[in-house]
Amino acid sequence: MSDATFSHLDETGTARMVDVGHKPVQRRVACAEGFVYCAAATVEALRAQALPKGDVLAVARIAGILAAKRCDELIPLCHSLPLDSVDVEFFIEAEAVRIRTTARTTAKTGVEMEALTAASVAALTIYDMCKAVDKGMTIGGIRVTEKRKE
Amino acid sequence: MSDATFSHLDETGTARMVDVGHKPVQRRVACAEGFVYCAAATVEALRAQALPKGDVLAVARIAGILAAKRCDELIPLCHSLPLDSVDVEFFIEAEAVRIRTTARTTAKTGVEMEALTAASVAALTIYDMCKAVDKGMTIGGIRVTEKRKE
Amino acid sequence: MSDATFSHLDETGTARMVDVGHKPVQRRVACAEGFVYCAAATVEALRAQALPKGDVLAVARIAGILAAKRCDELIPLCHSLPLDSVDVEFFIEAEAVRIRTTARTTAKTGVEMEALTAASVAALTIYDMCKAVDKGMTIGGIRVTEKRKE
Amino acid sequence: MSDATFSHLDETGTARMVDVGHKPVQRRVACAEGFVYCAAATVEALRAQALPKGDVLAVARIAGILAAKRCDELIPLCHSLPLDSVDVEFFIEAEAVRIRTTARTTAKTGVEMEALTAASVAALTIYDMCKAVDKGMTIGGIRVTEKRKE
Amino acid sequence: MSDATFSHLDETGTARMVDVGHKPVQRRVACAEGFVYCAAATVEALRAQALPKGDVLAVARIAGILAAKRCDELIPLCHSLPLDSVDVEFFIEAEAVRIRTTARTTAKTGVEMEALTAASVAALTIYDMCKAVDKGMTIGGIRVTEKRKE
Amino acid sequence: MSDATFSHLDETGTARMVDVGHKPVQRRVACAEGFVYCAAATVEALRAQALPKGDVLAVARIAGILAAKRCDELIPLCHSLPLDSVDVEFFIEAEAVRIRTTARTTAKTGVEMEALTAASVAALTIYDMCKAVDKGMTIGGIRVTEKRKE
Repeated sequence: MSDATFSHLDETGTARMVDVGHKPVQRRVACAEGFVYCAAATVEALRAQALPKGDVLAVARIAGILAAKRCDELIPLCHSLPLDSVDVEFFIEAEAVRIRTTARTTAKTGVEMEALTAASVAALTIYDMCKAVDKGMTIGGIRVTEKRKE
Repeated sequence: MSDATFSHLDETGTARMVDVGHKPVQRRVACAEGFVYCAAATVEALRAQALPKGDVLAVARIAGILAAKRCDELIPLCHSLPLDSVDVEFFIEAEAVRIRTTARTTAKTGVEMEALTAASVAALTIYDMCKAVDKGMTIGGIRVTEKRKE
Repeated sequence: MSDATFSHLDETGTARMVDVGHKPVQRRVACAEGFVYCAAATVEALRAQALPKGDVLAVARIAGILAAKRCDELIPLCHSLPLDSVDVEFFIEAEAVRIRTTARTTAKTGVEMEALTAASVAALTIYDMCKAVDKGMTIGGIRVTEKRKE
Repeated sequence: MSDATFSHLDETGTARMVDVGHKPVQRRVACAEGFVYCAAATVEALRAQALPKGDVLAVARIAGILAAKRCDELIPLCHSLPLDSVDVEFFIEAEAVRIRTTARTTAKTGVEMEALTAASVAALTIYDMCKAVDKGMTIGGIRVTEKRKE
Repeated sequence: MSDATFSHLDETGTARMVDVGHKPVQRRVACAEGFVYCAAATVEALRAQALPKGDVLAVARIAGILAAKRCDELIPLCHSLPLDSVDVEFFIEAEAVRIRTTARTTAKTGVEMEALTAASVAALTIYDMCKAVDKGMTIGGIRVTEKRKE
Repeated sequence: MSDATFSHLDETGTARMVDVGHKPVQRRVACAEGFVYCAAATVEALRAQALPKGDVLAVARIAGILAAKRCDELIPLCHSLPLDSVDVEFFIEAEAVRIRTTARTTAKTGVEMEALTAASVAALTIYDMCKAVDKGMTIGGIRVTEKRKE
C-alpha cells in the first residue's frame, strides 16, 4: 500500500492540491447525511419547537448552507467551487435529528466535501442549541449517500 | 416541554445569542472526540503514511485548529472567544482514526463547541484526503468527553 | 474645520485605527434600527409568511448576528470586540419591515458599528429574499437609537 | 399571496438557495446607490478632507469593494460569483454623501446584491469615520438603480 | 509619468478593480519564490526537524495554500479566481529556507498575486514557528519567477 | 539540536498552539518593517501619485490593517488577539517603498506576527497595484524592528 493511495499526497508524502485544470466543467451533484443523536425529551422538544414557530432548524439550515459555501476555507486541499445550490433538510426521528444535504455545482470537480461540510456544521449548530438541556448528544452517521454527474 | 428548553430561543421561539456579559471570566477547558471509520486498507495506508513522513495528519490537525478559532463564524449563536490553546491528536485504531481535541480559554463561556468543531473539521479533512481510495467512510462518534473549569 | 474632526485620521489626513489600549474595559450597549421599505403586497406576504411557519425573518436574523460578529472584518478601522450578545428583532409595519438591533460587549470601545452592521445586513438579506417579486424596495433609516454604558 | 412569492422559500416555507445550474453564463451588471445623511459641518469637513489629501473616501471605497467580493458570506442564500469588477464612487452633496456602486460579473445569476452590499458597507465605513463628531447621521436610500445583461 | 501608470487607478487617481469581463478564460500559471533568512542553528534544527518527522513545513505549506485561495480577501483589488491548484515547496539552504510556489487557474486573469501570497504566508508561518529561538530572522526575496499561459 | 527548539512542536514533533492561559494580560507592542524594491520610474510614479491625490498607499494601508486583524486566520498557530491599534506607514525611498508597521494589544501574548503580517500584506498590495508597469519588483527586508511591553 503505497503513498499513491492518497491523491492529495505526492510521491514524497507531501500534501498538495490535485490539479483539476484539465478536467471537464460538468454539472455535479452530491448528497450527504448526518445525525444528531439525542435524548427522547430533546427530540420531543425539537418536534414541538420545529413546527410551527421555532427557529432552531432554520438556524441550523443557514449554518449548513453558509459552511458549504466556505468549504474551501475549512478543508485545506479543497478547490473553490461556485455552488449552483445547497439544500439542507431535517427529519425528526425517534432518537435523532437526521440531516440530509445536497450540493450542486457546474465545475471541474465534485462536491461531496461541500455536502458533508453542510451536514457537519448543521449538526454542530443543532448541538449548540440543545446543549443546555441535553448533555449526552452525539453527532454521527455523516457520510455521502449519492454522487453523480448530470 | 416548553421552549425554555432551548437557551438560544426566547419565549417566542426566536433565536438569540445568550447574553454572557455578567458571567465571570474563568479558565475553561473542553475535550471532544470523533472518529473517521474506514476500510482496513485505508487504516493500513494511514498507519504507513502517518509515520514517519506523511502530511495527512498534519494537514488535518491544522484544519481542526483553524476551525476552532473560527467557531463563532460557523456556529451562528456562538460567542467569539480568545482561545488559550487548541490541541488535536490522532490515534490510528483497527477500523478508524480516532480524533481527540482539547480547547482552552479564559473567558465568560465554555469551549465545547470549539472542541467539537475542531474534531469535525479534522475528520472532514481526513475524509477528503482518503476519499479517492475509500468510498465507504463514515464520520461519527463526535461528542464532548470532558468539560471543566480550572 | 480641520482634519482633527475625524478621529480615524491623523494630522496628515492618513487613516488609522484609534489606539484604545488605555480605555477602561466596560459593559457597553448600542441599539440601532433600519427599514426595508417595500410594496404593500410584499408586506402582506411577509406578514403571512413570518407567522407562523416561514424562514424569511429567521434567515435575516442569523445574517445580522453573524455580520455583527465580523464587523471588524467589514469596517476597516473597527476594533475586534468580543460581543456579549446580539439581538435582531423585526416589526412588520404598514409599508416596511422595521429592524431593531442591540449589541452588547464588555470591552474598551463601543458597539454602535456592530449594531448598525447587524441592521444593514439583516436588511440586505430581507431584500435578497423578496427581490424576485418586489423590484422597488429601498433600505433606509439606518441609525443608532441608543448608546450607553452599564 | 402564497409562499411562492419568495423564490428563496420552497412550498413549505423553508429557506433554500435557488438552483442556478441551468441558467446561462452571461455578462450581468447592476448599479446601486446609497446615502449617508449628515450635518452640514460634516459635509464641509468631508469636502475639505476628500480633496486633495484625505483617506476617508479611499477607505470607504476599499471596504465596499471587499464587501462585494464577500457578499456570498454575508447574505446567506446568495451564490458565490466571480466579479469582473466593482466600482464605488462618492459624490459629496449638500446634506449627504451619495454612494454609487457598479458590480459586473460573467455568471449565471445577477449581481444586485453585490452592488447593494458594496453601497451599504461603504456607507457604514463613512459613518464609522465621522461618528466621533456627528452623532445624528442616518444611512438610507439604498436601492438598485440599474440592472442589465450585456 | 501619469497616473495611467497604475492600472488600478482611474484618471483621477482613484482605486478601482480592472474590469476583466472581456478577457478570455485561459489556463494561467505563475510561480513565485521567497526566503526566510535565519541563523545557522535554526537551519540545522529545521533540517533535523523537517525530515523525517516534523510538522513545521507541513504547517507552513497548508498556510500558504489556504492564503492563496483567499488572496482576493487580502489584496483589495484582486479578482476572485477558482484555482486549479497551488503547490508550495521548501528547500532548506545554507542560510535560509527557500519557498517555491506555483498557482494555476483557468480564468480571465493571472495568478501571480496568488503565488506571491502563498509564498509570503508560508514564510510568515515558518517565522512564527521559529521565532522563539531565532530573534533575527528576515523574510525577503519574494518575487515572481515565472508567469505563463498554457 | 532537539525539537524543543520549536515552541510550536511538542516532544514528538507535532504542531501545537502554545497554551497562553497562564500568561499575564499586558500591554504589548511590536513594530516591523518591509520593503517593495522597484524600478526608479515606479518610485517616481508613486511619489507623484502618493501626494496629493492618489489612492495607492491608502489601499495598501487598509489592506495591512485588515490583515493584522485576521492574523490568527492566516498563521495557523497564532492566537486570536484583540488589537488596540495597528499603524501602517510608508516612506518612498530612492529604490523602494519602505513600510513601517506597529501593532498594539493588551493581551497574553505578543503581536510581532500581527506587525509582520500587516507589513507583508501592505507590500503585496503595493506590488499588485504596480505590477502592470514594473515586472521586476521584489518584496524583502520584512523583519521585526522592536518588541516591548509597556
